Amino acid sequence: MLEIEIKARVQSLEAVEAELREKGARYLGEEEQVDAYFNHPCRDFAQTDEALRLRRAGGRVMLTYKGRKLDAVTKTREEVSLAVESYEAARQILAKLGFVEVAKVRKLRRRYSLGEYLVELDFVADLGSFVEVEKKGETYSPEELLEFLASLGIGRDAVERRSYLELLLGEGDG
Amino acid sequence: MLEIEIKARVQSLEAVEAELREKGARYLGEEEQVDAYFNHPCRDFAQTDEALRLRRAGGRVMLTYKGRKLDAVTKTREEVSLAVESYEAARQILAKLGFVEVAKVRKLRRRYSLGEYLVELDFVADLGSFVEVEKKGETYSPEELLEFLASLGIGRDAVERRSYLELLLGEGDG
Repeated sequence: MLEIEIKARVQSLEAVEAELREKGARYLGEEEQVDAYFNHPCRDFAQTDEALRLRRAGGRVMLTYKGRKLDAVTKTREEVSLAVESYEAARQILAKLGFVEVAKVRKLRRRYSLGEYLVELDFVADLGSFVEVEKKGETYSPEELLEFLASLGIGRDAVERRSYLELLLGEGDG
Repeated sequence: MLEIEIKARVQSLEAVEAELREKGARYLGEEEQVDAYFNHPCRDFAQTDEALRLRRAGGRVMLTYKGRKLDAVTKTREEVSLAVESYEAARQILAKLGFVEVAKVRKLRRRYSLGEYLVELDFVADLGSFVEVEKKGETYSPEELLEFLASLGIGRDAVERRSYLELLLGEGDG
């Protein structure tokens, strides 16, 4: 399964939220997410464009592997997620295996669904406000995601391909 | 937390089971366990005496890291366990991170508790019958575990320090 996803930086989440409600989007809820990112013991994920994330949100803990991005515009990549019972035990096992925590990303996320799209409004500590648009599936076109962003009043120049982790660490290809 | 544990090879699980019942041990149940063992992408667990195991048993899935053995007689080692939601997702994430499955251990395990000890009667596919004695704690003495084995009619010469994985792969220090 691919995670088909595009992200854009916005000045105001409120404006996008008003646009979403106007279009009849369904509000799914708000969640505080704390993500710990780990580097691999013998390859550099900053080079291979992979990521390993341990997320704590709403009482659940999720371990997620993300493969490299598949095109030059969107953030679409292979993703495998695993619900785990304990943040602390997962962190300990990763440490024993030589995975090194490189950063924590903290954000408040509000989620809406609109047709086949999931729209996430993120307020990210130290980084600012972003809109992520996501679609699950096996096929996608970057152009289709850009058009959907445009329909929310977000232009192509606002697209941010770097992950929050890359932005925090000052890495990535922009 | 240490996993304080000793293992011995036996001819007959029935004889040990009779001895346990005689002593008033409590029967905890029987379970089929299938364990997949993985090697590390950049260090050889056969050399470092570590292990990473993904266990499927009784509808549950557990990921466990085991550190090197701490003494010359018992199998006592550091152990960190994590319940996970999906065997397949865990296997996929491990594969993406470069962990290689090296063997599967299949066994039928019957468990008894007797005082502070947990006694496991294992019938292991391709290997035979074994008794494992386990105690949770921070301190232990190998001698104490040997005495407990002796009380079940199992001598010191029956002690097997190699893991089932090492026995299957023909590795270890015996």
